[in-house]
Amino acid sequence: MEYPSRTIEEAVEELASLPGIGRKTALRLALHILKKSEAEAERLGKAIIAMRKETKFCKCCGNISDEDICKICSNPRRKQDIICVVEDAKDVIALESTQQFMGTYHVLGGLINPLMGIGPSMLNIDSLVERAASEEVKEIIFAFTANIEGDTTAFYLSKKLAPKGVSISSIARGIPMGTDLEFADEVTLARSLINRTRLTTPGGE
Amino acid sequence: MEYPSRTIEEAVEELASLPGIGRKTALRLALHILKKSEAEAERLGKAIIAMRKETKFCKCCGNISDEDICKICSNPRRKQDIICVVEDAKDVIALESTQQFMGTYHVLGGLINPLMGIGPSMLNIDSLVERAASEEVKEIIFAFTANIEGDTTAFYLSKKLAPKGVSISSIARGIPMGTDLEFADEVTLARSLINRTRLTTPGGE
Repeated sequence: MEYPSRTIEEAVEELASLPGIGRKTALRLALHILKKSEAEAERLGKAIIAMRKETKFCKCCGNISDEDICKICSNPRRKQDIICVVEDAKDVIALESTQQFMGTYHVLGGLINPLMGIGPSMLNIDSLVERAASEEVKEIIFAFTANIEGDTTAFYLSKKLAPKGVSISSIARGIPMGTDLEFADEVTLARSLINRTRLTTPGGE
Repeated sequence: MEYPSRTIEEAVEELASLPGIGRKTALRLALHILKKSEAEAERLGKAIIAMRKETKFCKCCGNISDEDICKICSNPRRKQDIICVVEDAKDVIALESTQQFMGTYHVLGGLINPLMGIGPSMLNIDSLVERAASEEVKEIIFAFTANIEGDTTAFYLSKKLAPKGVSISSIARGIPMGTDLEFADEVTLARSLINRTRLTTPGGE
């Protein structure tokens, strides 16, 4: 592709370095930005720079934060004895939107992925082991995507955390709400059978 | 969605203002940028700002350019007597990549779209009429997307340019290369029949 201007080419190259954005999409975005006012384009550019410069990571859980300790970790109404371990900040937002979890989180910053060269030492695991060693912590929940990386990470962490005397669990795998059984894949369906939820007991409780 | 940090929220809002990027994608992009180095994030932000500030529009054809007159208009080897009219700079790049066209372009900056409030006066049409009035110009080709907006714009321009004594044509509509006939829509197939290309004449020329 030959670009009509050098500045456009630079912007397209930069935008195309983002995940899921190829050259054509990047060009479409660049042309859209050209139609905006100079002030709007500046706001977008500066927001990106400011975000990278000013965003901190919570010293306790590793989540994105404006302060040294994030809003969730510093909230006295959150239970400190239960930690939900997630891949990244997106997952915290998703879980928080359920309003079902009153514990704290631990953000790994990725999943173990040997093919991509991501080993345990590159993740925020040491601080999790440290937190788990505290007497206060009773349960750790793994909330990972159901794929090889998620399972590998859960397996590695289970081994690592088992000696700490905490209860370890994983979020349930099964049929999503509103999904027809016929469209579910075999692995999900098999897991949903194995991990079936008891509705009544023979005694009629 | 509640964001863990104010700077993230601002960046997500700005990114989500781009076409085809919703809140979830914007958050994914923001988290990706957070993983980059500060210098890389700054390069992205500054490239966007610089592009909007420094990019000019060619005074002749309206295409994006580094100079007052773009590389195509100022190229003495391009035929000045034939003008290809397109919607935006993306189309110039697409047509240039065919290496089939040696004339010049005219970029409208959009198509007539009454539903979106885009009328002829908001497009780069007056300068096209001016160019067409010059004795030098012999043919004008419309290369618009085949939809209502493209057809409306072609119809409007035809009326406007007819008195200038130039020959007016449109790029061919038909079956794309490599597409099975059975998968083509009826309108395209009908057009490809109406505008069929003669391969031999009865005389056997």
